[in-house]
Amino acid sequence: MKRAIFPGSFDPFTIGHESVVLRALELFDEIIIAIGMNSEKKGFLTVENRMKLIEDVFKDKDSVSVKQYNKLTISFCKDEGINFILRGLRTASDFEYERAIAQMNRFMENEIETVFLLTETKHTPVSSGILREILKYNGDVSKFIPKNTDIKKYL
Amino acid sequence: MKRAIFPGSFDPFTIGHESVVLRALELFDEIIIAIGMNSEKKGFLTVENRMKLIEDVFKDKDSVSVKQYNKLTISFCKDEGINFILRGLRTASDFEYERAIAQMNRFMENEIETVFLLTETKHTPVSSGILREILKYNGDVSKFIPKNTDIKKYL
Amino acid sequence: MKRAIFPGSFDPFTIGHESVVLRALELFDEIIIAIGMNSEKKGFLTVENRMKLIEDVFKDKDSVSVKQYNKLTISFCKDEGINFILRGLRTASDFEYERAIAQMNRFMENEIETVFLLTETKHTPVSSGILREILKYNGDVSKFIPKNTDIKKYL
Amino acid sequence: MKRAIFPGSFDPFTIGHESVVLRALELFDEIIIAIGMNSEKKGFLTVENRMKLIEDVFKDKDSVSVKQYNKLTISFCKDEGINFILRGLRTASDFEYERAIAQMNRFMENEIETVFLLTETKHTPVSSGILREILKYNGDVSKFIPKNTDIKKYL
Amino acid sequence: MKRAIFPGSFDPFTIGHESVVLRALELFDEIIIAIGMNSEKKGFLTVENRMKLIEDVFKDKDSVSVKQYNKLTISFCKDEGINFILRGLRTASDFEYERAIAQMNRFMENEIETVFLLTETKHTPVSSGILREILKYNGDVSKFIPKNTDIKKYL
Amino acid sequence: MKRAIFPGSFDPFTIGHESVVLRALELFDEIIIAIGMNSEKKGFLTVENRMKLIEDVFKDKDSVSVKQYNKLTISFCKDEGINFILRGLRTASDFEYERAIAQMNRFMENEIETVFLLTETKHTPVSSGILREILKYNGDVSKFIPKNTDIKKYL
Repeated sequence: MKRAIFPGSFDPFTIGHESVVLRALELFDEIIIAIGMNSEKKGFLTVENRMKLIEDVFKDKDSVSVKQYNKLTISFCKDEGINFILRGLRTASDFEYERAIAQMNRFMENEIETVFLLTETKHTPVSSGILREILKYNGDVSKFIPKNTDIKKYL
Repeated sequence: MKRAIFPGSFDPFTIGHESVVLRALELFDEIIIAIGMNSEKKGFLTVENRMKLIEDVFKDKDSVSVKQYNKLTISFCKDEGINFILRGLRTASDFEYERAIAQMNRFMENEIETVFLLTETKHTPVSSGILREILKYNGDVSKFIPKNTDIKKYL
Repeated sequence: MKRAIFPGSFDPFTIGHESVVLRALELFDEIIIAIGMNSEKKGFLTVENRMKLIEDVFKDKDSVSVKQYNKLTISFCKDEGINFILRGLRTASDFEYERAIAQMNRFMENEIETVFLLTETKHTPVSSGILREILKYNGDVSKFIPKNTDIKKYL
Repeated sequence: MKRAIFPGSFDPFTIGHESVVLRALELFDEIIIAIGMNSEKKGFLTVENRMKLIEDVFKDKDSVSVKQYNKLTISFCKDEGINFILRGLRTASDFEYERAIAQMNRFMENEIETVFLLTETKHTPVSSGILREILKYNGDVSKFIPKNTDIKKYL
Repeated sequence: MKRAIFPGSFDPFTIGHESVVLRALELFDEIIIAIGMNSEKKGFLTVENRMKLIEDVFKDKDSVSVKQYNKLTISFCKDEGINFILRGLRTASDFEYERAIAQMNRFMENEIETVFLLTETKHTPVSSGILREILKYNGDVSKFIPKNTDIKKYL
Repeated sequence: MKRAIFPGSFDPFTIGHESVVLRALELFDEIIIAIGMNSEKKGFLTVENRMKLIEDVFKDKDSVSVKQYNKLTISFCKDEGINFILRGLRTASDFEYERAIAQMNRFMENEIETVFLLTETKHTPVSSGILREILKYNGDVSKFIPKNTDIKKYL
């Protein structure tokens, strides 16, 4: 059985994140969406609401679960007995950042492998950071988050 | 009549910004330099002083005006009845960020088009961020801001 | 009256090129699509067929014309009395190449300005080079070229 | 059973390619290393010798095989009944090229997914292109190709 | 005699920084590792401890010294009578940032030259920022800092 | 005594190359400008004329000489007893290419160090490739090559 964690802050979870998880289910039997808590940076949504939003999106998918963690990602992997980290790639600057993180993780735990899927073309500009900007001004983000998700329920 | 807004934080307005506006006047009949207010991030110059500095630079150009706004850039465009956003491009990493913003704006308001001009070669390294660093240590920024602008008047 | 040339090799003209031209018509009163001939590099389509394809695409747009040229782009601009060069931007590596060309053009003819529009999000991966690869293996490119264009007519 | 193709020109196959295949065997039950033939570009090694070299490297791995193909990569995938394309990522410029190819493949065959692994840190600068340069001057490439491979046997 | 300053925040000093200094000693007779103080940003290690760590690393190298400064880097250079700034380069996004800083420094003090060495391949993903993340969760950074350095002594 | 080679194809030598050499003379006592011959690629200028042009530029600088070589750059370094390779950096895509070459050289000859200087801001868009394009159409390149150099003498 192949299991992966999909770590991130998901503040909020976007349509791009959803697409990566759904496509990765062809590759993995189980995916844990893992919200890294950052004690220093206050989020936009609370971690609880981010978890709830994601759980609602995948309520019909038994192979997808959501957890939060407050440690190094590789420590969380070891605790869960998981060797694969799943990440989506959008842009070249994303790539350089992701490469550094993934290679450092490998230096620390040699058996952990990071697997990358591309975001879909149409999702390339969609990022949590831009969605937070739009939400700050009460803009409409419904096109950029998973279908049938009412963001107001989680703010 | 073709009108454009040139949005930014302009903290401070640089010689590179000035050059983009002047060259864009060949393309647009009217340009509104629009200072996006960010209630969370305290600026280096006050928004009022940034506006004043820019007004002084363009005091002889009737086709250039300065406004501040506290909403999404596309909402400001709609309020002003303007369909063009003007942006300067300096570097490849600038580009990826600008592309995401522009494509998201387009997703939200299909008729809004972002038009890019390059900074001049000699202005490529000049950014507001580096100027703020220099100003923090009382360094001389006169070469990097519009001619005859005494930055001390606006600090 | 504002006129621009849109230079390129257009081998072949893609749906991304078409979108740039159509959107640029909001900015310019007239656009000349200018096919740079390269005596050294044999194209995939002949220059004549590339012209014909583009003419067919814009046969209802009087403000768009097609020409070929065999000189520096800035010399062609001067011959036509045109000061604007229009270019589409897709990726960060595109950008660095385009910046070098545009800045060199400016060094040689100060009054010539290059204006950039982004390709639409969904057209980002579409390039003439990839289309040529697909065509070489008789693949179907109809999704990636202007609507109602039968590429076989121009091969 | 999860199967993937690992397409490339492998001219020659490097230690970086080998590492990607070995690590991907944790993810896939079977991997076909697929050498795309390019009738126009004469290779450095013949396709036959490239195949032989790779077969020798993986002679003890039943789950790895080598094939050549002379069609679009997605056509080869369909012929083999395979939905995963495996690719290694080294640099940011690699990434932009790979993204375009992968997104175009997806436009053409929606069910085909490209999965990316990073090269190992120490293999980042190793590319077939640089190895060809070294071989042209009879330099020593043994550090950069799979262990116990005598490149002279395949030249 | 050729002298250089190696400016940075070194929070903490990494194995990559150490390698740049050691290799640069082939080029320069004296290197001052210069810790720029940033009154606004509280560091992870105190400036005093960062200095102590670096001094301990180079305690046997008379040609390497450590200083702190609270001014523009070029002002510090002038105070020390030094014309060379040494910097390590890791990634393409590093490069664009470094280029802007170096070119601005040159605009302000024409005689100051920035000299770049690459980090070693194996150090490419190692950055102070990632080390701080690891340290925050009590992870083991010993592989990423100079040999025989016990980071706990400096926290 | 510190000696460096400055390898390249210099087809033709640009004002940017000249600036890198002149500034590097502050760092090195002797610089050999080394033209790598490429038997497969016919140049624009002959190697002899490229050498002549460069010799004419530096005829008053005893510390600068010009040589051609037809081997790996590191083999040429060893033959000359030189441990430093000098390179200029212009853009982020330049950087990734240069990094791969420099790191591979280091893998092959550990004692060889590549030292990078930036091109001056105003020279950033100037490349031999663009100059060849201009020359092909009899354009004027005098602004982009060393002063008082009549390119026609070397074509």
